[in-house]
Amino acid sequence: MSIETILHMNTGNGESSYATNSYLQEHGIQRALHVTNEAINRMCNDLGGFPGVFKIADLGCSSGPNALLGISNIISRVHDMCNENNFEVPQFQVFLNDLIENDFSILFRSLPTFYAKLKNGEGDHCGPCFVSAVPGSFYSRLFPNKSIHLFLSSYAVHWLSQVPQGIENNKCNIYMAKTSPTNVFEAYRKQFEKDFTKCLRLRSQEIIRGGRIVFTIPGRSISDPTSEDCCIIWELLAKSLVDMVKEGRIPESDIDSFNIPYYTPYEDEVRDVIKKEGSFLIDNLYSFALDWEPYNSDNGKMDVADRPIRGKNTAKLIRAVIEPMMATHFGNSIMDMVFYKFEEHVVHHLSAREGRNFNLVISLTKH
Amino acid sequence: MSIETILHMNTGNGESSYATNSYLQEHGIQRALHVTNEAINRMCNDLGGFPGVFKIADLGCSSGPNALLGISNIISRVHDMCNENNFEVPQFQVFLNDLIENDFSILFRSLPTFYAKLKNGEGDHCGPCFVSAVPGSFYSRLFPNKSIHLFLSSYAVHWLSQVPQGIENNKCNIYMAKTSPTNVFEAYRKQFEKDFTKCLRLRSQEIIRGGRIVFTIPGRSISDPTSEDCCIIWELLAKSLVDMVKEGRIPESDIDSFNIPYYTPYEDEVRDVIKKEGSFLIDNLYSFALDWEPYNSDNGKMDVADRPIRGKNTAKLIRAVIEPMMATHFGNSIMDMVFYKFEEHVVHHLSAREGRNFNLVISLTKH
Repeated sequence: MSIETILHMNTGNGESSYATNSYLQEHGIQRALHVTNEAINRMCNDLGGFPGVFKIADLGCSSGPNALLGISNIISRVHDMCNENNFEVPQFQVFLNDLIENDFSILFRSLPTFYAKLKNGEGDHCGPCFVSAVPGSFYSRLFPNKSIHLFLSSYAVHWLSQVPQGIENNKCNIYMAKTSPTNVFEAYRKQFEKDFTKCLRLRSQEIIRGGRIVFTIPGRSISDPTSEDCCIIWELLAKSLVDMVKEGRIPESDIDSFNIPYYTPYEDEVRDVIKKEGSFLIDNLYSFALDWEPYNSDNGKMDVADRPIRGKNTAKLIRAVIEPMMATHFGNSIMDMVFYKFEEHVVHHLSAREGRNFNLVISLTKH
Repeated sequence: MSIETILHMNTGNGESSYATNSYLQEHGIQRALHVTNEAINRMCNDLGGFPGVFKIADLGCSSGPNALLGISNIISRVHDMCNENNFEVPQFQVFLNDLIENDFSILFRSLPTFYAKLKNGEGDHCGPCFVSAVPGSFYSRLFPNKSIHLFLSSYAVHWLSQVPQGIENNKCNIYMAKTSPTNVFEAYRKQFEKDFTKCLRLRSQEIIRGGRIVFTIPGRSISDPTSEDCCIIWELLAKSLVDMVKEGRIPESDIDSFNIPYYTPYEDEVRDVIKKEGSFLIDNLYSFALDWEPYNSDNGKMDVADRPIRGKNTAKLIRAVIEPMMATHFGNSIMDMVFYKFEEHVVHHLSAREGRNFNLVISLTKH
């Protein structure tokens, strides 16, 4: 089965859905807003205002409350700038892209509220906004030549176009891990380099000269690919699968043949790909760490009593993202048990260490 | 509940789905192709070729095999014309519009096949085609100013934005019928006039000067609004509901409060609205009749033995279109029985007369 068929977040808006369990991504998007705002400022300065129709595309928009968060911010920022500078407010044409199996229905049902909020927030002076959905992979062409002014992509381009080849020896792991053989790190790095290059090359054809792209992705804080901030969550999930093997519920070979098509690059790797590809200049490369449960960590300290609920929430967060892919490989029937074990491993991990992930925001200009 | 929530065809691709029961519309679309081709020819002559990105929107695309039929034809026709005239083949940006509750998922799943056929049919010389979905009502703005070259709309704009008001006295009918009071005909006509005017006004803002629209809708062949070619099918459905009342299964008041937001205009009514609205010139107004079961009527005669199967198929065709709206009003549980009775009435009708509907194709240019 192709990655495109099984790579999507949990659909609907139930307990296990991505719509209900995407607060970490939401927090990350919020933290990246200032980079997008800066990109809009610069583009507006370069162009001496905004085009009559401002065309924005969100690559890998997913569904749920985050899907229109970045877009709302852009419209609001453009509106403010037009007010401040006495520019004419543009019309907005928004393209929400994701793979065909993404839950577009739930996204479409949120549009009336989105349009109503826009009208209330910005008033009648806000240019009308026209939202459409573009189903397909961002590793293929999605838009006509030079038709987009601003690309936004949050928590999407770290998903690879395929599982790297030749990593059958990544035994009892499901991603790069401390115990992975060297070729696994190399295969993952190369697949990311190939995919991210392709994504940039395709966008360079679709974007206008002077257009901007802002990517937000999970990454790692140090060059070492076994860095805890990128690998630990998948090591804990692999542990849960190994538990299932020990209990005789799945064969070990099922883990060996499962690897996640996902990559958390180090800052320098991202810079290298952009430089080599050559179509874009880096305006900003900003990084930040996020607690696995950002909304509960205001005081910066972990309360022992909080660990179980944090474990549960983190397990739900990861389940919402990875379940369709795992269920296809391991079968639906064991999912509850795998994620129960995973929750226990997360709680145990949190008893000794903090749970954090690391994020990169990359702002580019097409030259 | 708003019309927009319940006005959609039966979803999925099962036995009762629109995808499986839309052959009448398919046949109608086929019959209208030459009008669209003529519109493309004229536009190409006026513009001296095609724009670099040819932007096409289908209003009320629905889902199933018909959704991309008209679009495929346009792309094929443009390709042929470019070949014949040595024009550069444009890129195609296609916007498929329908209400939010339309089954876009099944439409999206058909895209890989659509793209593959395009590549096979037209070869690598065919300009790439980028399909997006635009959820929303065509009685509201859907696109930025002057952004569309060609609108296509097949079997869609006969759906009104609401049930005409003040027709509570249309007792035991669900549409205009021989027994309807005079005010009912007037209310339906006025609602159509208002809605079609609005649809034209909105499109006139979205289309380029010299752009084309081709509408295909069911209509009626004579001025009399009780013309059999537009009303009989709904009279037979109303009869089935009256049967249910007689059997004590639904209260009569449930029929009285149900009227279909649908209008089958006479040619002159369409001309009048277009003329009054004023943004478009009529290039062509073509009409044709279709048997309820066009694929089985090659010899033009009805075989007595065919009647039951024709009754069944016609009932399925109508059920696919109207069930979501009827189920919301009358309840899901009685749908099987209503459509069983309807099938019987259709068979009985076919024993005495032919089942035909009448269609209008309206080709317009924005001046």
